[in-house]
Amino acid sequence: MDSKRRNRRRFLQSGAALAGLTVTGVRSALGQSSMAEAMSPKNKELIAYGERSKYIKSIRVPVSGRMSPDMYGLTFHVLTPLQDQFGIITPSSLFYVATHRGSYVPEINPNEHRLMIHGMVERPLIFTMDELKRFPHVNRIHFVECQGNRASPQHTTVQETHGLTSCAEWTGVPLSLLLKEAGVKNGASWIVAEGAEEIKGSSSVPLAKAMDDCLVAYGMNGEPIRPQQGFPLRLLVPGFEGIFQIKYLRRIKVVDQYYMTYDDYGHINADARAAALAEQIGPKSVITFPSGGQQLPGPGFYEISGLAWSGGGEVRKVDVSTDGGQHWQTAELKSPTYRMAHTRFGLPWKWDGKECLLMSRCTDELGTVQPTRAEVAKFWGDPPERARVRGNDNTVQPWRIAGDGSVHNGLA
Amino acid sequence: MDSKRRNRRRFLQSGAALAGLTVTGVRSALGQSSMAEAMSPKNKELIAYGERSKYIKSIRVPVSGRMSPDMYGLTFHVLTPLQDQFGIITPSSLFYVATHRGSYVPEINPNEHRLMIHGMVERPLIFTMDELKRFPHVNRIHFVECQGNRASPQHTTVQETHGLTSCAEWTGVPLSLLLKEAGVKNGASWIVAEGAEEIKGSSSVPLAKAMDDCLVAYGMNGEPIRPQQGFPLRLLVPGFEGIFQIKYLRRIKVVDQYYMTYDDYGHINADARAAALAEQIGPKSVITFPSGGQQLPGPGFYEISGLAWSGGGEVRKVDVSTDGGQHWQTAELKSPTYRMAHTRFGLPWKWDGKECLLMSRCTDELGTVQPTRAEVAKFWGDPPERARVRGNDNTVQPWRIAGDGSVHNGLA
Repeated sequence: MDSKRRNRRRFLQSGAALAGLTVTGVRSALGQSSMAEAMSPKNKELIAYGERSKYIKSIRVPVSGRMSPDMYGLTFHVLTPLQDQFGIITPSSLFYVATHRGSYVPEINPNEHRLMIHGMVERPLIFTMDELKRFPHVNRIHFVECQGNRASPQHTTVQETHGLTSCAEWTGVPLSLLLKEAGVKNGASWIVAEGAEEIKGSSSVPLAKAMDDCLVAYGMNGEPIRPQQGFPLRLLVPGFEGIFQIKYLRRIKVVDQYYMTYDDYGHINADARAAALAEQIGPKSVITFPSGGQQLPGPGFYEISGLAWSGGGEVRKVDVSTDGGQHWQTAELKSPTYRMAHTRFGLPWKWDGKECLLMSRCTDELGTVQPTRAEVAKFWGDPPERARVRGNDNTVQPWRIAGDGSVHNGLA
Repeated sequence: MDSKRRNRRRFLQSGAALAGLTVTGVRSALGQSSMAEAMSPKNKELIAYGERSKYIKSIRVPVSGRMSPDMYGLTFHVLTPLQDQFGIITPSSLFYVATHRGSYVPEINPNEHRLMIHGMVERPLIFTMDELKRFPHVNRIHFVECQGNRASPQHTTVQETHGLTSCAEWTGVPLSLLLKEAGVKNGASWIVAEGAEEIKGSSSVPLAKAMDDCLVAYGMNGEPIRPQQGFPLRLLVPGFEGIFQIKYLRRIKVVDQYYMTYDDYGHINADARAAALAEQIGPKSVITFPSGGQQLPGPGFYEISGLAWSGGGEVRKVDVSTDGGQHWQTAELKSPTYRMAHTRFGLPWKWDGKECLLMSRCTDELGTVQPTRAEVAKFWGDPPERARVRGNDNTVQPWRIAGDGSVHNGLA
């Protein structure tokens, strides 16, 4: 690459000059005394920072009712209440949390946080948060989902089966821009991204994906990313499993091979191409109303509603069955729809008061169709009652409506 | 309309049957004891309901620093910190608040709340919240803005000049569906919508608008609408001034004329058509970075960033000038973009360290262009220094960058 081209790629003055700047960034004109007054107990909710109604009790719950995260050492999972949510944006306070990388939430002062890009690059760079915010930004709506999120006969509610997926508007810098700023060397093929947790969690992402649509995100639903979601900086790898969306992002190393890292469970694969493919979430959907634990008041009109998503891109179609998969109807996709984002679907339905089995299945822009457990069993030659999914489990979750309107797990 | 057609329009069994249903709705399977445990002081933030970082201090402030709303009787305005926000979604806790209709936030039990539709309809109807949620829903991203939001020489920050606009993902029932359910009579031409505030605030909306894109909204950014935004029910009138987006919506009367209501200031007009036209927000934009009170650390690359919106529909184009309006460049519209929604724009900019004047102007899908104050003065024949806008003020807000990088109001 000649120096002229290289210079054009440098948005900021230069790596060296940047490091020397005293970037004070956005400084509010609001004085300290009026801020204190706005935040006083009397005025905080009314003025400074509103809260939800006392009548709204929707909360996250831990996986399997495990209330004390410190009991489980480095693993911690908290489920989002999908059954209570509207639209496609997950409220930040209710965004799911999953970690295998530490027993506490890192408390990072953003003014002290740095992102280093090094390895197979022309110019290793270190960025402050203020420097990152000077780059041109993008806003994208994407889901993040834990690999453990799946249809299961063991649970009662959709929060328990599928509460490890959430969706937000993310704001940040395209990773490609930062990598171009650093200048990726010939022969590089993967990146390894590392966070600042207790255990320095890291994951390998193919360079092609890193240059395509990954984001170095500092914003989430209009405000700075919340601490449990990686404040102040998170790598977004759209459509890949949650574990690749490195929280508390502090280091990106450009490398020439796939590295297996701590807690890279499920991806131990000598074939780098196979490892890369295994990272992407398949087409998936789940009905959130009516779903397990809910109660229909009686026969009549309802709108079946749920969420669909795919790591393969946009949701092209969602089919819904009210008779256990014998017949399927195409649901309405509610705007807005985005690639690698939760997509809300709905289907008008008149319940006749008889027992029935509701199912949904997603087809993504690649034409891949979400399978039922019976289809998976047939594919692998397993007996139907012992269907076992290899890799990501994106099978259909059925809900059984009993004659009294109570809703139950159709796999149980 | 024959009875067959009328029946097809009734999504729920019938108005009468509906009122008799015991709709229990979404009931969590989570027991009371584990909920109490999740909400204990130790676990609340970690598990039940996450919070933002202690390092993030962005807050709403009252108009003109007036801290005690009860000092001002029925009027209360709280400004959203636009200078701190990313993307297009305003965090619900930071959504602006404006009211002229009561000195406190109504505390409404959603199980007791009702919406009545009456007046010139075939079948007057009363809906519970659970009944409303049984209708097919839509999700839309729309801004809401107070008529008082405007460029002004009197303020320092963009929070002070333009903090009375916010944007959210709204979930609800199309008002047209409810009006069809009730059956609008021939000759009806307006609706009057009423909220449950201390003073029963109401506003008149043309029936054509009500049947077009209005929403009876119960969801906001994925959760129930917050109390300060109208919990549990709000009328969304996309693109109209905030005062028409009736909070705590409890009554819609279908009528055959325009009614002037309490606090319908600025719309007193004998000509109903002129009154209707005056309700729509014109094409508008404001630069949020760099904006008044902020500080550039020195010459070099920055991305000028801001928000544009219009009651006339989609933002087609945003132009940015860095020389006080002598030359204009077309900014990038950052996805996502929606009709009657905040639209984020950005323009790469290299600051040479010299004093300059930044301006932005919005062109909407109707081709209407946001004017400068000089253009308004010329239109009305006013001397430039005494430019006065009649009706909605959507004039350009310039920001002056001083040689030391400090940012000031360009109108001051």
